[in-house]
Amino acid sequence: MAQDIRAEIRKVGIVGGGVIGAGWAARFVLNGIDVAIYDPDPEVERKTAAVIGNARRALTRLFGQALPAEGTVTFAGSIAEAVRDADFIQESLPEREDLKVRLLAEMDAAMPDHAVIGSSTSGLLPTKLQAGMARPDRLVVGHPFNPVYILPLVEVCGGDLTSQRTKDIAAAVYTQIGMKVLHVRKEIDGFIADRLMEAVWREALWLINDGIATASEIDDAIRFGAGMRWSFMGTFLVYRLAGGEEGMRHFLHQFGPSMEWPWTKLIGPKLTDELIETITRQSDEQAGGLDLRTYEKLRDDCLVDLTHALERHDFAAGAVARAHRQRLGGGAPAVGSVLTDGRVLTISTPVQPEWIDYNKHLTEWAYLKLFGDGTDVVLAKIGAGAEYVAGGHSWYTVETHIRHLGQARLGEPVEVRTRVLAADAKRLHLFHEMVSLKQNAVIATAEHMLVHVDAKAEKSAPAPQAMQDAALALVAGQAQLPPPDGTGRQIRMPG
Amino acid sequence: MAQDIRAEIRKVGIVGGGVIGAGWAARFVLNGIDVAIYDPDPEVERKTAAVIGNARRALTRLFGQALPAEGTVTFAGSIAEAVRDADFIQESLPEREDLKVRLLAEMDAAMPDHAVIGSSTSGLLPTKLQAGMARPDRLVVGHPFNPVYILPLVEVCGGDLTSQRTKDIAAAVYTQIGMKVLHVRKEIDGFIADRLMEAVWREALWLINDGIATASEIDDAIRFGAGMRWSFMGTFLVYRLAGGEEGMRHFLHQFGPSMEWPWTKLIGPKLTDELIETITRQSDEQAGGLDLRTYEKLRDDCLVDLTHALERHDFAAGAVARAHRQRLGGGAPAVGSVLTDGRVLTISTPVQPEWIDYNKHLTEWAYLKLFGDGTDVVLAKIGAGAEYVAGGHSWYTVETHIRHLGQARLGEPVEVRTRVLAADAKRLHLFHEMVSLKQNAVIATAEHMLVHVDAKAEKSAPAPQAMQDAALALVAGQAQLPPPDGTGRQIRMPG
Repeated sequence: MAQDIRAEIRKVGIVGGGVIGAGWAARFVLNGIDVAIYDPDPEVERKTAAVIGNARRALTRLFGQALPAEGTVTFAGSIAEAVRDADFIQESLPEREDLKVRLLAEMDAAMPDHAVIGSSTSGLLPTKLQAGMARPDRLVVGHPFNPVYILPLVEVCGGDLTSQRTKDIAAAVYTQIGMKVLHVRKEIDGFIADRLMEAVWREALWLINDGIATASEIDDAIRFGAGMRWSFMGTFLVYRLAGGEEGMRHFLHQFGPSMEWPWTKLIGPKLTDELIETITRQSDEQAGGLDLRTYEKLRDDCLVDLTHALERHDFAAGAVARAHRQRLGGGAPAVGSVLTDGRVLTISTPVQPEWIDYNKHLTEWAYLKLFGDGTDVVLAKIGAGAEYVAGGHSWYTVETHIRHLGQARLGEPVEVRTRVLAADAKRLHLFHEMVSLKQNAVIATAEHMLVHVDAKAEKSAPAPQAMQDAALALVAGQAQLPPPDGTGRQIRMPG
Repeated sequence: MAQDIRAEIRKVGIVGGGVIGAGWAARFVLNGIDVAIYDPDPEVERKTAAVIGNARRALTRLFGQALPAEGTVTFAGSIAEAVRDADFIQESLPEREDLKVRLLAEMDAAMPDHAVIGSSTSGLLPTKLQAGMARPDRLVVGHPFNPVYILPLVEVCGGDLTSQRTKDIAAAVYTQIGMKVLHVRKEIDGFIADRLMEAVWREALWLINDGIATASEIDDAIRFGAGMRWSFMGTFLVYRLAGGEEGMRHFLHQFGPSMEWPWTKLIGPKLTDELIETITRQSDEQAGGLDLRTYEKLRDDCLVDLTHALERHDFAAGAVARAHRQRLGGGAPAVGSVLTDGRVLTISTPVQPEWIDYNKHLTEWAYLKLFGDGTDVVLAKIGAGAEYVAGGHSWYTVETHIRHLGQARLGEPVEVRTRVLAADAKRLHLFHEMVSLKQNAVIATAEHMLVHVDAKAEKSAPAPQAMQDAALALVAGQAQLPPPDGTGRQIRMPG
């Protein structure tokens, strides 16, 4: 499904270019899809450029050069112009039902036969929104979260007249641009996520209204506690763990009585001018003079680093990012395979954002990380992988010589090709070349001597015969190649 | 204040050894404080050991060997025995007011004159809890969040009779063990954090009760969206950013009308047996057969990695962890200073958890990271720091030779001491030694050749005279030392 849809989507119409609309535009464009934006705001071009700039920085940190060539951005003079050759339309108008109903009908009238519309509404019901459309089956809610270009969640919810095909197309489009689709099966005000956020917000307003806590204290109550768990586990999994060995049923029974407590006010407080002033003042104090752009960068950096941290565990948003990275990159290469010239392909990866230094190049230590990971691939091949290490023996690197011959930048695809130059009972002599596929050039080499050790005794020891044989086979495989340039080198000042 | 208090706290009495009590015990013990635990559960020793095991793994990943020697754990046969020689007492009994009132009075009667009690209650009012105590001024609420040994938040709330000294002591004790104290200024059911969590929970129960969404869908609605933001920014800062350039006041005015919408049910649904069964079944499905221990490890790993990610930005929980690491480690050393023998101290750090490999040693690339950071310290010293690089010139490493002579483990303090062996207009020849302070031994050396480059032209170029002079001064400073062992080496198979 996703594959078919992908081919169809070349251009997206963005109607409404505020924080959310511009965020959508950025996500589509950075994932290689052209957009046409309509918003009557005379400043829409400047504001959109700022959001796309933030998104470019964040997504380049997140995915590197796995990202495709950027799509183009055009600004349309009318709704009809924005949607008339669009394959998909994302509506992000202000949250006024009458306005949306009227303009959705206008989009419907102007868009191609095959197009469908996703509405960013955070709370209005799709059945009501599609009321004025000639082809109401083409509307579905696709409700995102700010910043749209990083947060993966999108709630997909159809109205009474939405077709299954429309829901499928929207889900495929959103998946294609790296999002996590949550199908909302029953139409309800606020869908799922905003009902939960709204509940927090209502309670927070009471706490300020009643003088219990300030904006900053309420934020601290979230971000130093429950919020940290909520970033990768929701409330149910958290409580399951809180229940301990007795499990969820026990937890719920224990919890039952507290639901009767008069803990929270029943409706939100009135947002009087006075309360608005109080919150605004507290929010200013909390922001401490740092401006919006600085905070946006900090937020985006934290979200990207959080996603990378979770990607290491292939969990929550990290699993979504990993899947998207593979989708963008077209699957994993055959690392560990012996190339036709007898060398082993030990690494194949785009340069990751964590590996970039202040010169904007692949940083010094990252070369050794890649060469070291390449060494591990060779070790696994000769039978010295994780299981072997767990058994108490290992190969330790005792000496390393690296030459830097070039540079690599963020996202640039690099490979390490490795020769086992020599081996005996206790030693392995390796030579790695790192190649930039983009430059088609060797950018660094590393020569290593490894010793086989008994880790408990902390002494060198002969490797098992089968391992020696496997190593010698790799030596023989590359023996017809000339000795590599740069072995046995010494570091010396000239003359 | 914290300093005075620290000296006083040698032993903590833990009354109640469930998930929360054992979490407290683990946090105190891992921060070097002895605990005595009382809980009538015949399995308390086994359960506590499991929690302390999880905590040891998590905090060692988080702080490494910055952690002090562990405190001791003893199990008391009675409340009196647990508290009689305690400097501080943490009560984590079941949430029943009558039980807490009775046993807090018992603790009060048996504890030393100087001791105070922190209660872990998540919702009961301290004014009511202190009702039966002879010295009610000694009770304060110190409400933590699970897992207590990782999450920094603790809500401190006094009752009508709680003294300021008691609040100060509790805040100092909690800060000392790495927590973020949130002072709750007005006594209120559920304090601040639980009122917010409770609001989410109540809404979530309705969504399940009404068949709108499953436990797993609700968790996804949180963890792929708002939850990611909440892990480092609370709801107010998030909405401030969502408001865009128009700011918080505009956002609130815009938001006003939606507070009138009938979005959320007014009180929680009745937790009928049927609803409990539904939630339990959905929770089992969501857990997908993975057991509690596996999930606890995953949760702890994600929390630690999230904290490390935030520590890089010195923000939210990362700022708390950084402050605690410095408190534990006694402040930053004088990196960049010239030692008496003319070498430069370029690195001083405990081995961090990210740098450990599958052999449980400092991993290969981390050596080059530390050596490379050491090189940067030398470059900054001769005037080639970040500003210089921004101006378009830089020093690039062209060749590196590393020898591994030993190993270092998690938390082990290591230093890099650097010699500038030679310098000319375009070259720097550096030699680093990495020393384990624990082993008092050189565990690795690195020899580097660097070339001064015009980064735009991508060509070597002479360094400014002042920089050459500064480099030559560092060469002269170490010239009386013998040539280091291991320069100019080649990698070769023997014989």
